Amino acid sequence: MSRYWSPIVNRLSPYIPGEQPKIDNLLKLNTNENPYGPSPRVIEAIQNGLGDNLRLYPEPTSMALRQVVADYYGVTPEQVFVGNGSDEVLAHTFFALFQHSRPLLFPDITYSFYPVYCNLYGIEYRTVPLEEDFSLRVSRYAQPNGGVIFPNPNAPTGCLLPLMEIERLLADNSDTVVVVDEAYIDFGGESAVKLVDRHPNLLVTQTLSKSRSLAGLRIGLAIGDAELIEGLERVKDSFNSYPIDRLASAAAIASFEDDAYFRQTCQQVIDSRKQLTAGLRAIGFLVLPSAANFVFTRHPELDAETIAAKLRRAGVIVRHFKQPRIDRFLRITVGTQDQNERLVTILKGMV
Amino acid sequence: MSRYWSPIVNRLSPYIPGEQPKIDNLLKLNTNENPYGPSPRVIEAIQNGLGDNLRLYPEPTSMALRQVVADYYGVTPEQVFVGNGSDEVLAHTFFALFQHSRPLLFPDITYSFYPVYCNLYGIEYRTVPLEEDFSLRVSRYAQPNGGVIFPNPNAPTGCLLPLMEIERLLADNSDTVVVVDEAYIDFGGESAVKLVDRHPNLLVTQTLSKSRSLAGLRIGLAIGDAELIEGLERVKDSFNSYPIDRLASAAAIASFEDDAYFRQTCQQVIDSRKQLTAGLRAIGFLVLPSAANFVFTRHPELDAETIAAKLRRAGVIVRHFKQPRIDRFLRITVGTQDQNERLVTILKGMV
Repeated sequence: MSRYWSPIVNRLSPYIPGEQPKIDNLLKLNTNENPYGPSPRVIEAIQNGLGDNLRLYPEPTSMALRQVVADYYGVTPEQVFVGNGSDEVLAHTFFALFQHSRPLLFPDITYSFYPVYCNLYGIEYRTVPLEEDFSLRVSRYAQPNGGVIFPNPNAPTGCLLPLMEIERLLADNSDTVVVVDEAYIDFGGESAVKLVDRHPNLLVTQTLSKSRSLAGLRIGLAIGDAELIEGLERVKDSFNSYPIDRLASAAAIASFEDDAYFRQTCQQVIDSRKQLTAGLRAIGFLVLPSAANFVFTRHPELDAETIAAKLRRAGVIVRHFKQPRIDRFLRITVGTQDQNERLVTILKGMV
Repeated sequence: MSRYWSPIVNRLSPYIPGEQPKIDNLLKLNTNENPYGPSPRVIEAIQNGLGDNLRLYPEPTSMALRQVVADYYGVTPEQVFVGNGSDEVLAHTFFALFQHSRPLLFPDITYSFYPVYCNLYGIEYRTVPLEEDFSLRVSRYAQPNGGVIFPNPNAPTGCLLPLMEIERLLADNSDTVVVVDEAYIDFGGESAVKLVDRHPNLLVTQTLSKSRSLAGLRIGLAIGDAELIEGLERVKDSFNSYPIDRLASAAAIASFEDDAYFRQTCQQVIDSRKQLTAGLRAIGFLVLPSAANFVFTRHPELDAETIAAKLRRAGVIVRHFKQPRIDRFLRITVGTQDQNERLVTILKGMV
């Protein structure tokens, strides 16, 4: 608290990201990073971009990257927005599309950054309860609103909403913007990008941090009707002309160009998720069906916070949320098959 | 204009950055980039950071970089904020420190992004006229305000305000935050960072884009009282947890560590500025005294826009602002000695 701060700063409750510990040999299963590194072609593209040219500003509209993403998804570059990680893309989305007189709707159990953005920009919101099994019932969103946002698959549950349900939600809410936050879509879901041409109120956000193994470089996307993208561009150009640096842009382009590597590593994560799920179930854990690169799991008897603390002492970090309805659960990032085995072996000693 | 936009988006007038043309062999003297590339140690640091680790998020508080900057300036890391270019740092500054009931003050001739930020966040502002010779008279700022911001040296004039005058301004405005935007300070000015321990209302912003030749990597800084920095951190953590990517962070650290290279290239730019200024004056141009890596110049008879158009046809781009008081001027980035000679030779053919 300071007399120099804008009054709103006193009321902010910042988002708390998962820990990034500096301890070596820790098995880090807490922030849903990919166990595999980026494509060798990504590394090569960065190497090729290294040199005196770093003295020059990047191209401010990131048109080369937007063109590659547009080609990949069969849309136009005017339907693509890029930002410094999908968190920045989401921040601009909340500013550009969700400041309306009616409340924004999102699930009661979801990405915990959403209420933080609302708080930052003074956006009123209402949470809509998930069902008992943590599935999202779209009919609950047929109520007056200033927008709807949810991750698909949802975080931290991993539950996937079928595209048909999303279409119904879009039709029910054609007067407001529906944002489908697809941070984890590449691990088994079907992207809603194919719906953007039919639904001018749909915005799909994605990140290169998870399925494309580039959390360290900060690149996020939004895809939607050109009018929605123009709204985001106006905010971006009033905030920071050049959010995507030269190397991040080169890396992102190379990642979309090496589709074989992308598909292969995604499939490896999907296979590992099956193995991890089976391993956890075999030792008595309940595991929600996941379409993401993490599982959401609880033990019928053991306390989740205690398990997390014990795991940490054993050199493994997972994420626990102290929050009603989910405080008995742990969110565990899918690792390599070896890492999953190490985790399950340690857990086996606790049950 | 779209019914889906937040109403404020219709009222935004985005900042227009200098052109980033894709034409080869163009002499680009329009966006104040450094004619010299970054230190070889910067390139090496990026190379060392390249690999599988890009799959991991960066450390969200950028503590390693903040520590290096703190050591460089003799402050603590709690007095240092870092962002995705100084434009992002400024955006958070406007949000965190300038949303007050009284108007923000800045010069009538200054960085044209300031009114854009005000528009974005609904901040009322009042411009304070520079003197006839474009110098800033601090006594004009002794009026009720919600904050003061100005670049030092000023943009696009290049005029430097001595530190003693800044101290007077700080004392006159101890109830509000004074931001000194030092994007160009390393080319001959004295940084106000040395005043932060005495003035809790002083925030100094800097960029690695100009004097450190890293425009392509997007890194900006703010240095000030820990309480001001905490305000910025709260906004940043409500917007984007990880604005600085792994490679940008490694590059920035290496840049501060190679002080010899930094000093040498800054001195080369200063020497080139002298040469460019003398060359322009010799062919009849009026040149304002500059402490930056650009000069602000006009010809007593020739029309500035016409000169800029002719230069462009000759393969040189400079910046012209269609704005009262300065529409007869051109802002020309200082190039290498060869580049300056090429420019002056072309101009000589026009006068």
